[in-house]
Amino acid sequence: MADSVPRIITGDTIGPVDSTAVPRYAGEATFARLPRIDEVSQADVVILGVPFDSGVSYRPGARFGPSHIRESSRLLRPYNPALQVPVFASQQVADAGDLAVNPFSIDDAISAIERGARALLERTRFVLTLGGDHTVALPMLRAVRGPVAVIHFDAHLDTWDTYFGAAYTHGTPFRRAAEEGLLDRTGCLHVGTRGPLYTDADLSQDVELGFQVIPAPEVDQLGVTGMAERIAQRVGDRPAYVSVDIDVLDPAHAPGTGTPEAGGLTSRELLATLRSFARLNLVGADIVEVAPAYDYAQITGIAAAHVGYELLSALAARKAAP
Amino acid sequence: MADSVPRIITGDTIGPVDSTAVPRYAGEATFARLPRIDEVSQADVVILGVPFDSGVSYRPGARFGPSHIRESSRLLRPYNPALQVPVFASQQVADAGDLAVNPFSIDDAISAIERGARALLERTRFVLTLGGDHTVALPMLRAVRGPVAVIHFDAHLDTWDTYFGAAYTHGTPFRRAAEEGLLDRTGCLHVGTRGPLYTDADLSQDVELGFQVIPAPEVDQLGVTGMAERIAQRVGDRPAYVSVDIDVLDPAHAPGTGTPEAGGLTSRELLATLRSFARLNLVGADIVEVAPAYDYAQITGIAAAHVGYELLSALAARKAAP
Amino acid sequence: MADSVPRIITGDTIGPVDSTAVPRYAGEATFARLPRIDEVSQADVVILGVPFDSGVSYRPGARFGPSHIRESSRLLRPYNPALQVPVFASQQVADAGDLAVNPFSIDDAISAIERGARALLERTRFVLTLGGDHTVALPMLRAVRGPVAVIHFDAHLDTWDTYFGAAYTHGTPFRRAAEEGLLDRTGCLHVGTRGPLYTDADLSQDVELGFQVIPAPEVDQLGVTGMAERIAQRVGDRPAYVSVDIDVLDPAHAPGTGTPEAGGLTSRELLATLRSFARLNLVGADIVEVAPAYDYAQITGIAAAHVGYELLSALAARKAAP
Amino acid sequence: MADSVPRIITGDTIGPVDSTAVPRYAGEATFARLPRIDEVSQADVVILGVPFDSGVSYRPGARFGPSHIRESSRLLRPYNPALQVPVFASQQVADAGDLAVNPFSIDDAISAIERGARALLERTRFVLTLGGDHTVALPMLRAVRGPVAVIHFDAHLDTWDTYFGAAYTHGTPFRRAAEEGLLDRTGCLHVGTRGPLYTDADLSQDVELGFQVIPAPEVDQLGVTGMAERIAQRVGDRPAYVSVDIDVLDPAHAPGTGTPEAGGLTSRELLATLRSFARLNLVGADIVEVAPAYDYAQITGIAAAHVGYELLSALAARKAAP
Amino acid sequence: MADSVPRIITGDTIGPVDSTAVPRYAGEATFARLPRIDEVSQADVVILGVPFDSGVSYRPGARFGPSHIRESSRLLRPYNPALQVPVFASQQVADAGDLAVNPFSIDDAISAIERGARALLERTRFVLTLGGDHTVALPMLRAVRGPVAVIHFDAHLDTWDTYFGAAYTHGTPFRRAAEEGLLDRTGCLHVGTRGPLYTDADLSQDVELGFQVIPAPEVDQLGVTGMAERIAQRVGDRPAYVSVDIDVLDPAHAPGTGTPEAGGLTSRELLATLRSFARLNLVGADIVEVAPAYDYAQITGIAAAHVGYELLSALAARKAAP
Amino acid sequence: MADSVPRIITGDTIGPVDSTAVPRYAGEATFARLPRIDEVSQADVVILGVPFDSGVSYRPGARFGPSHIRESSRLLRPYNPALQVPVFASQQVADAGDLAVNPFSIDDAISAIERGARALLERTRFVLTLGGDHTVALPMLRAVRGPVAVIHFDAHLDTWDTYFGAAYTHGTPFRRAAEEGLLDRTGCLHVGTRGPLYTDADLSQDVELGFQVIPAPEVDQLGVTGMAERIAQRVGDRPAYVSVDIDVLDPAHAPGTGTPEAGGLTSRELLATLRSFARLNLVGADIVEVAPAYDYAQITGIAAAHVGYELLSALAARKAAP
Repeated sequence: MADSVPRIITGDTIGPVDSTAVPRYAGEATFARLPRIDEVSQADVVILGVPFDSGVSYRPGARFGPSHIRESSRLLRPYNPALQVPVFASQQVADAGDLAVNPFSIDDAISAIERGARALLERTRFVLTLGGDHTVALPMLRAVRGPVAVIHFDAHLDTWDTYFGAAYTHGTPFRRAAEEGLLDRTGCLHVGTRGPLYTDADLSQDVELGFQVIPAPEVDQLGVTGMAERIAQRVGDRPAYVSVDIDVLDPAHAPGTGTPEAGGLTSRELLATLRSFARLNLVGADIVEVAPAYDYAQITGIAAAHVGYELLSALAARKAAP
Repeated sequence: MADSVPRIITGDTIGPVDSTAVPRYAGEATFARLPRIDEVSQADVVILGVPFDSGVSYRPGARFGPSHIRESSRLLRPYNPALQVPVFASQQVADAGDLAVNPFSIDDAISAIERGARALLERTRFVLTLGGDHTVALPMLRAVRGPVAVIHFDAHLDTWDTYFGAAYTHGTPFRRAAEEGLLDRTGCLHVGTRGPLYTDADLSQDVELGFQVIPAPEVDQLGVTGMAERIAQRVGDRPAYVSVDIDVLDPAHAPGTGTPEAGGLTSRELLATLRSFARLNLVGADIVEVAPAYDYAQITGIAAAHVGYELLSALAARKAAP
Repeated sequence: MADSVPRIITGDTIGPVDSTAVPRYAGEATFARLPRIDEVSQADVVILGVPFDSGVSYRPGARFGPSHIRESSRLLRPYNPALQVPVFASQQVADAGDLAVNPFSIDDAISAIERGARALLERTRFVLTLGGDHTVALPMLRAVRGPVAVIHFDAHLDTWDTYFGAAYTHGTPFRRAAEEGLLDRTGCLHVGTRGPLYTDADLSQDVELGFQVIPAPEVDQLGVTGMAERIAQRVGDRPAYVSVDIDVLDPAHAPGTGTPEAGGLTSRELLATLRSFARLNLVGADIVEVAPAYDYAQITGIAAAHVGYELLSALAARKAAP
Repeated sequence: MADSVPRIITGDTIGPVDSTAVPRYAGEATFARLPRIDEVSQADVVILGVPFDSGVSYRPGARFGPSHIRESSRLLRPYNPALQVPVFASQQVADAGDLAVNPFSIDDAISAIERGARALLERTRFVLTLGGDHTVALPMLRAVRGPVAVIHFDAHLDTWDTYFGAAYTHGTPFRRAAEEGLLDRTGCLHVGTRGPLYTDADLSQDVELGFQVIPAPEVDQLGVTGMAERIAQRVGDRPAYVSVDIDVLDPAHAPGTGTPEAGGLTSRELLATLRSFARLNLVGADIVEVAPAYDYAQITGIAAAHVGYELLSALAARKAAP
Repeated sequence: MADSVPRIITGDTIGPVDSTAVPRYAGEATFARLPRIDEVSQADVVILGVPFDSGVSYRPGARFGPSHIRESSRLLRPYNPALQVPVFASQQVADAGDLAVNPFSIDDAISAIERGARALLERTRFVLTLGGDHTVALPMLRAVRGPVAVIHFDAHLDTWDTYFGAAYTHGTPFRRAAEEGLLDRTGCLHVGTRGPLYTDADLSQDVELGFQVIPAPEVDQLGVTGMAERIAQRVGDRPAYVSVDIDVLDPAHAPGTGTPEAGGLTSRELLATLRSFARLNLVGADIVEVAPAYDYAQITGIAAAHVGYELLSALAARKAAP
Repeated sequence: MADSVPRIITGDTIGPVDSTAVPRYAGEATFARLPRIDEVSQADVVILGVPFDSGVSYRPGARFGPSHIRESSRLLRPYNPALQVPVFASQQVADAGDLAVNPFSIDDAISAIERGARALLERTRFVLTLGGDHTVALPMLRAVRGPVAVIHFDAHLDTWDTYFGAAYTHGTPFRRAAEEGLLDRTGCLHVGTRGPLYTDADLSQDVELGFQVIPAPEVDQLGVTGMAERIAQRVGDRPAYVSVDIDVLDPAHAPGTGTPEAGGLTSRELLATLRSFARLNLVGADIVEVAPAYDYAQITGIAAAHVGYELLSALAARKAAP
């Protein structure tokens, strides 16, 4: 029962529930079956759910994203063979649960997210946010000490100006962030964008905000290695924030999202690219736009859980490096 | 093609597309394949979609309700055998399409809906609204000349006060309507409510707002006839507005909704009850909370389409009566 | 393996696979895991699949009905407690597999079905057909020695004249049958019809063809007992053919069908009604319009399998009666 | 976040999360958003998950039942209007999480469940078990001080002897319980059974074990009131254990289960019957056979959550009664 | 409402509904939210739905393809960044709705399609057909002034001779077209074929009809660039007709189709290949075999909508080129 | 009907049902519509279903795998164009149906599978097993005359030691096989492994058991050709057993499985790799872990059916080679 769960302990670090004693389908669904934040004395890295989707323009439902990603993360195990690193041994990772934010006021919600994230960042080094829609990236960027290089995986640019007169939606976080000086305009880039735009001005304005683009159609030529190289060259050793809109994946790999576009990345390409981030200086990350009502057999949730796992692995690998 | 669709004509009245010439799965999905409002010179009754769901507290998605109900209405035919009335012959029914309302501001949306409905009501006698979430009932009640008796089919009371500080959501329309004097407090009732409440105050406050209740568990004893009788006695010949939250049906009959509660009505019970409204003085109606992402094989959409059809039939039957 | 399956034997009768030796999910999916016709020396009753759906006017897919119903029949067991009869002990029931009929020619298909059924009826007393769309009822009625009283469970009348100029479709079998003298016009009735018609002429023409109607909305008042009584009075001891369009059930109970209408029967009502047929003189039956692509978790398939089981039980009960 | 969740407090009793502060889709999914057992100093009633399905004979997957029912219980509110009782105010209800039991050994699992339940019952008055398959009823009956009257809702008898030589499976718990003297053979009954059996011996043996039967087909005649009366007469004031196999519901109401049978109860009938148990002397209960892989839009999970809620309400109502 | 929809206007060209004023989920679902043909004075390019699937040999349902593709095209925006072209500015594109064709006679249907397409081609330069099954390619090839080079994307050859004696089905259009002299046998090719055939004669006969083949397994070696090059070399500046059976995509990318074969193209590969057609001389195109009953979360529909968009973009890019 | 099915005959070899006479959706679903073993006098190659999933650690349901793969194999045709070989002409392939194994005892099940396979191998040269979970690989390896080189396609290593004290589960077959001397430790390899492990010891122990690894992330660099080459080098002309866990595919390509991991192979990559096995000396094969309850539109089943087809093709191609 809840009060006596056997866990994998490494030195001072409390890891996931021991799956040889508690079946993976049993017990509470924290991310990767890690301890809740109230079960550890301190945490280096914290998982934070932000169930909020009032900023979406098409299919809603990402408010159920955090619980869905957690349920889909029950199969994650502690050792990353591709990076050769035990992910939860050298850093204490804990699940802080969900922020309670107002579904009826985008402004209140954004404030509450920023406030909640700031409070957490006084206790921890790194927050991995599980959205929620892409609106949540803005308050997270505010909470992280900036300006930062944003590595933005997405089918869309998300640098529109307003939509129905609203300045703060899931289509605008990076324009707002740029305006607020939260971005290091020499180091940002979009990865995986594709699909039609409103006008060519969408792209030219985007450039002014500090973004380079690796469009999805170029991935065939670049390959994963080329893509990782392009990102590394752009970002360098700048403090970097990774924002993964799950719709960067092709709808075949991530049907459970709000504004799907054909022609996206495979999960293998995305995960391999994230693995290369062990050499970057990550300061924050989010995984957004998982809309479970459109998912099937958890394939979107599992992809998102693996995205989170690779990001945590990159942190562990960097920490593990001499 | 669109510009040459054969239709069933009765006197001056332009009816649905002729299904012996155009298969039911072909062509534009207006409600019941009726003409668009721009295809008729005048309309007695108008179908209006309101794709809006920013007022929901749980599963969103009712913004896709209008198109889903219309797609699910392709099988409707023009003669109602239970009421022995040709539904589209004695009254011109037309589909006015969707109102375009702001998903990011509930206040703007409510204003736009009221404005749009008022404009329509200058051209027509009756508006049947396809939601959208239950928030839309408030501006529709404002647009209808009141006060009116509300016959409210729903698993929930929808007379809460505020939620997260928000006064206008899908849980509050009838409290707001009562406060604004839009309800005839001697003639309102809820039908089909069930499931747990917050406190017993929910019910006592509800009574003060002018509502009687026919809870779902009483339907077994009452039967359809008893239920129809109770409604008729309560409403009398008052101007009556019918608001059908599709979650009044059991989740087996309507999985595609946002806040499902077990133990609801069957579609047969609901449709039979609506048929009895031919003797009432209906002045407006809505069908809300159809969330297609949770529907299966259109069973919720088909139920909603039939609800609309029986309401239109009740209007036709009254018109047809001497 | 296929050549050594243990079965339940009662006297000379070879029954279903023994489920205490072969799990229900294992092995070939004949109806109720009964022997194939080539595994028995003679058969009193035969199950025949007719995978054909070229006669449908809306959602196609009933061509996959036979295999779906069989797969959904794996849980059927041999003793019917409601009728207190061992269903497969006093009569040899066998599965004749599927007829191979032309999907591109309705005329060829109808001929092939009639021919196939006639051939079978030289070897057996009773054929239970698994459709396929309702077109198949016509050739089955031709193959059965008529005229017969038809007990027709359906949301629709299926006595239309033509559709797109086609005389033979799933909407016309009973008009054609009446014209061909296959119906005993003093003994036919529709059960469970509902939903809108084209005109009031649909009903008046239907009466002329020899049908009484028990519309679905009357079932609340009649109850199962009343419904069974009405059928028995109408049919008497005439040779009777039972045709069950699965859309007689409410879409909640049978989403997997082609032209669903809200407000239908429950599976409990339908099965109880069929149980009363033990006192009738059944000469043939079909179960049609199961469209698996729209089914979920086999609920439609299971309902159809139970319909077949109750029909076989009625035969067994009559045979068992003194 | 997890460590600061606002809750509804009534005197000493800690109730569900306050939904006006934390949206229902946010935060941990304990049953009805109640406190975990480690968050309260004592508990009168405990919810216990038993994720185990190695005893099933057909569709597996009930191992995911506990988490699914909990996720489906987020909409439950604290006041039961039908019984007029605040459910979580007069009794402390807490969620004990899941028992970790061996999926590869039925014997080990049964022992662990009995041991876990006994340990809990030293700390609490009543355990409501969320299965898992019906095998779990046996160790729960062992743990409850017996003999008890079992009120068994199920499509099946579950009093078979062995299956593939196995004495302990989901088809045998009540025969084993009878053999072990755990049942008060003067007070047990099955409710809702239906569908075919192996032989008539199934029923005669069942009678010897102490069970009366209310078959599903009789519910139409009995009505909910009659059914409740029959149960009350049979059980009287004996200590009573309620075991609800969710397949007692019709597949339309509970597709998400392992051995569905057409012709079952509606959720309205089941919930109304449970409400009548406020007058009984309940000593334990389980809800089993929820298999989420076959559920849709949580309709089975929601039905199961409401079943649990009505059982907790019956306890509260009895406690509240003078 | 329908009669006052704001649109994007470029010079004389009337484009899609303005999504900053009308949310994408609102209003009528024409392709890409373009104007209906009766809303423009002339059209350069026309979208035509052909809801017909009586020619299929396995899973039916493509009759619902046109409405599904249109519903799935709501997210398309007007500027194609990969081709750097505003798609709806330099050419007037309009949606002509659906042709009404007979589901019960393949011959009648083929005649009606040819007749309807010819009538349209008197008013417009290019018709993009939304199927419907692949049978529709034949009448479209008749309507286009030929002979033409056919670029055929498909898992299958579709050059069979007859099936069940039927000469005109979804497996035969290109053999019939070759026999009728509609193909330029020096310029045709299949792309993406894979999966087993009946005999080796299938391939040799296909060669005689004028087709080269780029089988799916070769795409790994060729890459998108190589594939585009091979097509360009084969087609040259011949008048070219593009026929896209959506099953050319892997079932992961297009589950919603009738005869799926594993091992297909990704949507990224297909879209990139189509983009290269800006240099070809396209005279007609179709997108067929989208069967929505098997789709999930619209991923097949979205892929098909993007296919249409890239084809329209290729036309625009060629027109835009000097 | 079953006793008169027309088949494709080549010399002495009885092939699949003739699809020009019997539509693919009609008739019994043996694998590829091949004859049952009791319909042929001898068989070179036999398909054997093993519906067993009591060894799974997460999502169960693979017990329904054999019937699902067979239903999904109805579209397979007899000629393999990529290998230029008629698959069912030079070797008699037959379907032996399912083994009946005990779901309640893993030990009994393993014995029964070994016994059943040995019996079959006295009558045939090659058994292709349709699982069932991966536990079945162990008894199949026992039945094949070993030691053999195992080519193991899987997301996981399946060389764990014990799980919940159980030595025989779906996670341990290859460790047990190595311990029993069934493996040629100089020739085994895993292909497509990915996702997190418990510790780095998992990998080092695996090496000791004789396995090389081609992890999924390396496939991008290797390509199909490189992967095939690596396998050929490792296996050489050793007797080789191919074990395909369908979760080697990405969840996008195979959602219907029990322990899905993001980042897997595409079906195109897997099928092309299998095609290269025509040069190997195959002595046995299995396809396991297809869990239909999580499949959609049969995409997993179709992939599995094609895997089986390519394995049979490789056998045919080797036999056909001089």
